[in-house]
Amino acid sequence: MSTKQEFLFGQQSHAIEVGDIVYLAQDTPFILDCGAEISQLPIAYQTFGTLNADKSNAVLICHALTGDQYVLGAHPVTGKAGWWELMVGVGKPIDTDKYFVICSNVIGSCMGSFGPKTINPATGKNYGLEFPVVTIGDMVRAQNLLLEYFGISQLFAVVGGSMGGMQVLEWAARYPEKVFSAVAVATTAQHSAQNIAFHEIGRQAIMADPDWCMGKYAENKSYPAKGLAVARMTAHVTYLSEVMLQQKFGRKLQNRSEIGYGFEADFQVESYLRYQGNNFVERFDPNAYLYITRAMDYFDIAVEHGQGSLAQAFAQTDTRFCIISFSSDWLFPTEESRRVVRALNAVAADVSFAEIQTDKGHDAFLLEVPEFYAAVKGFLDESARQRGI
Amino acid sequence: MSTKQEFLFGQQSHAIEVGDIVYLAQDTPFILDCGAEISQLPIAYQTFGTLNADKSNAVLICHALTGDQYVLGAHPVTGKAGWWELMVGVGKPIDTDKYFVICSNVIGSCMGSFGPKTINPATGKNYGLEFPVVTIGDMVRAQNLLLEYFGISQLFAVVGGSMGGMQVLEWAARYPEKVFSAVAVATTAQHSAQNIAFHEIGRQAIMADPDWCMGKYAENKSYPAKGLAVARMTAHVTYLSEVMLQQKFGRKLQNRSEIGYGFEADFQVESYLRYQGNNFVERFDPNAYLYITRAMDYFDIAVEHGQGSLAQAFAQTDTRFCIISFSSDWLFPTEESRRVVRALNAVAADVSFAEIQTDKGHDAFLLEVPEFYAAVKGFLDESARQRGI
Repeated sequence: MSTKQEFLFGQQSHAIEVGDIVYLAQDTPFILDCGAEISQLPIAYQTFGTLNADKSNAVLICHALTGDQYVLGAHPVTGKAGWWELMVGVGKPIDTDKYFVICSNVIGSCMGSFGPKTINPATGKNYGLEFPVVTIGDMVRAQNLLLEYFGISQLFAVVGGSMGGMQVLEWAARYPEKVFSAVAVATTAQHSAQNIAFHEIGRQAIMADPDWCMGKYAENKSYPAKGLAVARMTAHVTYLSEVMLQQKFGRKLQNRSEIGYGFEADFQVESYLRYQGNNFVERFDPNAYLYITRAMDYFDIAVEHGQGSLAQAFAQTDTRFCIISFSSDWLFPTEESRRVVRALNAVAADVSFAEIQTDKGHDAFLLEVPEFYAAVKGFLDESARQRGI
Repeated sequence: MSTKQEFLFGQQSHAIEVGDIVYLAQDTPFILDCGAEISQLPIAYQTFGTLNADKSNAVLICHALTGDQYVLGAHPVTGKAGWWELMVGVGKPIDTDKYFVICSNVIGSCMGSFGPKTINPATGKNYGLEFPVVTIGDMVRAQNLLLEYFGISQLFAVVGGSMGGMQVLEWAARYPEKVFSAVAVATTAQHSAQNIAFHEIGRQAIMADPDWCMGKYAENKSYPAKGLAVARMTAHVTYLSEVMLQQKFGRKLQNRSEIGYGFEADFQVESYLRYQGNNFVERFDPNAYLYITRAMDYFDIAVEHGQGSLAQAFAQTDTRFCIISFSSDWLFPTEESRRVVRALNAVAADVSFAEIQTDKGHDAFLLEVPEFYAAVKGFLDESARQRGI
């Protein structure tokens, strides 16, 4: 059932159509990796297409750090198109005429699922920093509860890019029997030192903002907009490639013919970054940003599922894997995908791998890159044939 | 003559041995590229070795963004060794038994030269944001005044890495007759869009800190330590290579055996970055950081000196060039050095080029990389032979 809720983004309150929300774990508490026990777990999700009679056509889409369940259709805060309209829909690689598509907001996030904005029943206020630290494993176990709620015992496919790809790998390692095929894009099996470093910068930028108020900005009627904008600007640069930045902006000036000898945004690239930073604060919760980056930092599938061996984490898997990287992605470079492929090869898993040539950097998984969508379509079509869909 | 001055770094006042200070441009105002006229230009510098009788053995060292004139010897604020002890000294590539070495603090900086901490004679207070925006060209013209003060009509060599390398190229383009040889390391002829973007993030982090007080933190007895630390952390990641970060830190934990499920510095790389950020605020002026990053952003030698053509900027040069890059430097990648080399080749300049293989990233020019120092020594020794030193 569809629900509207009041959400505070920045200083503005929005009545948001959060899609369906289900309250899971009501009978048995949900125990997070950190040990916290949750007895009511709200999960906000969207579905597209129709579940077939034998429930064999479900595709779970896992979203990235700042993504959400709005794969298709207007976003309730920004009004923009869904984030994966190029991938999902009628006639698209994940064809909604053929598959039943589910996407839920990850726990730790801010679009209706259990997160730091959730009201803590113990205090009647937002959890804020009282919110427990969650992991990618926790996110996936919460998604699994949602699938149990739907009565789906096996997913036809789990698909995601970036942090979504981490969840795909986590699904395959944790619930191999529940994953017929897995498409992990622009991702890694363990977060690198450099990526932890960039996340730490973002968190420090947010926490340095006095309007963050130790996470209690809602209570204090403040909002760490500047800190969050700096965090977003830093992350945004890592999503692009140097070549793309040079081609798109180079040293072009913004609305002026000469440099201004000052600290205004002389260059288009500065103006663009400021815009990205400012836009973000109107749609994303600062505390959620802290929690989700932390979950990514903690991600290390070899340690979690393979006693230190990545291959071991996927031993005896029957899942069909499709691993995709982008040549200009320096946040999750191709080498990290190759490591996953080598581990899968080591256990004789069914794996196909493609490095897509593009200048679009990490963000390529969200952008117009025809070869990428063709690769996913080819893989899913063949998987569907094998699954008899 | 050596001078002590009181300097405020962070909240602490230090009596700093600023080395020699000379007040230039007293007769003729110094006109900055932005149009501002300066009638007294303090330049703080250090020298090492002895100027020979015909003044032919002078080597000018140009420092990087956060560097200073303390090439050798204890730094007056940090107490640490000089920043280029590996390059300069008896028996080193820039041998102080052979050369007269000069290094001056660039204008815009904070170690005694004309910068935003200088007292504005019009107000009796620090310039702060009233300080005019300076360019790499301005820095070099100020250095030229210093050389005139010494009566040196030609430098045997100008040497520098990163922003120091920008100054080297600027020297060669602006005063070709004054530069016998030029060693430009890990640098570029024009600042890239990505690098402008990273600088803008640093500036936004500083300016987002309410303790920055629109640049008037000294008057307000505040200090934007958190913003400056975030700026430094961001920059610091760009100085290293992913491989180096992975080898040095990987996912090693800091003083704990398990992740802490919180926002403490669980990982060594986080702890290291925080340390880098916090250390920096005790030795560098936030406004100076704004001004110097801006000067780098504005740097575009083809536009300044070649009517858009980089080759043209070096037409008819007699300078001997040595261009050096580091294979893992992604801030100033080898391709940017190659562009300079191609331009020099196009005007038949005398140029040697080396890409040094190392995992140490951009910071390699400050670190123990024997092949690098050997390359500089080889080039300077041969140049000295040709110059008859």
